[in-house]
Amino acid sequence: MKALIVYAHPEPHSMNAALKDAAVGLLQHHGVAVQVSDLYAQHFQPVASRDDFLQMENPKRLGYSHEQRHAAAGRRFSADIIAEQDKVAAADLLIFQFPLWWYSVPAILKGWADRVLSHGFAFTNELVFERGMLRGRRAMISVTTGGSAEELQADRRYTGTMDEFLKPFSGGVLRFVGLEVLPPHIAYAVATMDAEGRTRQIDTYRTMLRSALAT
Amino acid sequence: MKALIVYAHPEPHSMNAALKDAAVGLLQHHGVAVQVSDLYAQHFQPVASRDDFLQMENPKRLGYSHEQRHAAAGRRFSADIIAEQDKVAAADLLIFQFPLWWYSVPAILKGWADRVLSHGFAFTNELVFERGMLRGRRAMISVTTGGSAEELQADRRYTGTMDEFLKPFSGGVLRFVGLEVLPPHIAYAVATMDAEGRTRQIDTYRTMLRSALAT
Repeated sequence: MKALIVYAHPEPHSMNAALKDAAVGLLQHHGVAVQVSDLYAQHFQPVASRDDFLQMENPKRLGYSHEQRHAAAGRRFSADIIAEQDKVAAADLLIFQFPLWWYSVPAILKGWADRVLSHGFAFTNELVFERGMLRGRRAMISVTTGGSAEELQADRRYTGTMDEFLKPFSGGVLRFVGLEVLPPHIAYAVATMDAEGRTRQIDTYRTMLRSALAT
Repeated sequence: MKALIVYAHPEPHSMNAALKDAAVGLLQHHGVAVQVSDLYAQHFQPVASRDDFLQMENPKRLGYSHEQRHAAAGRRFSADIIAEQDKVAAADLLIFQFPLWWYSVPAILKGWADRVLSHGFAFTNELVFERGMLRGRRAMISVTTGGSAEELQADRRYTGTMDEFLKPFSGGVLRFVGLEVLPPHIAYAVATMDAEGRTRQIDTYRTMLRSALAT
């Protein structure tokens, strides 16, 4: 089995880093080959543009999805996109480790989806959801929040719930390309968590990963 | 009255560009002073990092929100953030013009929110929603989609509705900082729109903007 962790946090001493490291350790312990796309360390460039294509079908007018479709046929994407697509293609399990920023994924991770999960690689007009091109793989979100569980589970303070805020990425992006999405790991209120709370949270995450591996 | 259009599309011949230009024209015709943040043309850098702070309160460990709070007091943000914050502060009306990519805003616009709408500038722990620091201003989303109105309004094909997909940005980000959010302008299925359809859509948008100015 192979796993890819797409990790989007700038700080090596963060809870996100600790969760990413815990996942690497646990997966390797269970014989899983793990790759990490450390988007900050890679200086991943998240802005979709004409530079993403080695050759454009219509250089006069950038139709991004249109160019993706043409580029996918001959793998004529920029090298950074090809590298990420190859990692995705090789993985049985994709884990997304990120902090919830502004009700969503950080820009660097949004750009990973915009550029890497391209038309012709991850889906076509016909191949979506159950027939999406990444079907047969599973995906799991592991997210940290500033808000507390009380606030974010029951629509207090933030005008909505975590389910709603994660839906565009998990129910949308990930399922659209055919991934089977596992229940998310959510670490609430990490900024005010003490060392013991962190350890407990990491244990919870390990348990979730173990049960994902067992099924 | 002053307006700021935050515009996130790479192609000058796109429907998004036409809508942005239509808004500039109409607003100026009505005596509104318009600024445009053309994020692609500005090469706006969307990745939140320690480079966003001229001086860090804790250089050993990046706590992004924590550093934002400290930077806001003395405007110790990088120059590109200050420039955007000044445009926001000066505006009575904020318009966000973007294509719906992967159920959400493009990465370059997500990064604008991550970096510009900072703790201490747009909100504090106490000053959120009705008390948000950008209160007294109005905001409007103008978004284009690939999917059709039939698909996106009634939960067909995409497992959800436009209301749900726009909620994290409009009901979340924009309202959290105190903005009064006007009904969105949504141009569906723009890739397959002919010239006449485009003209009609731009007229619809103009009508919405006129009615926003009249109230």
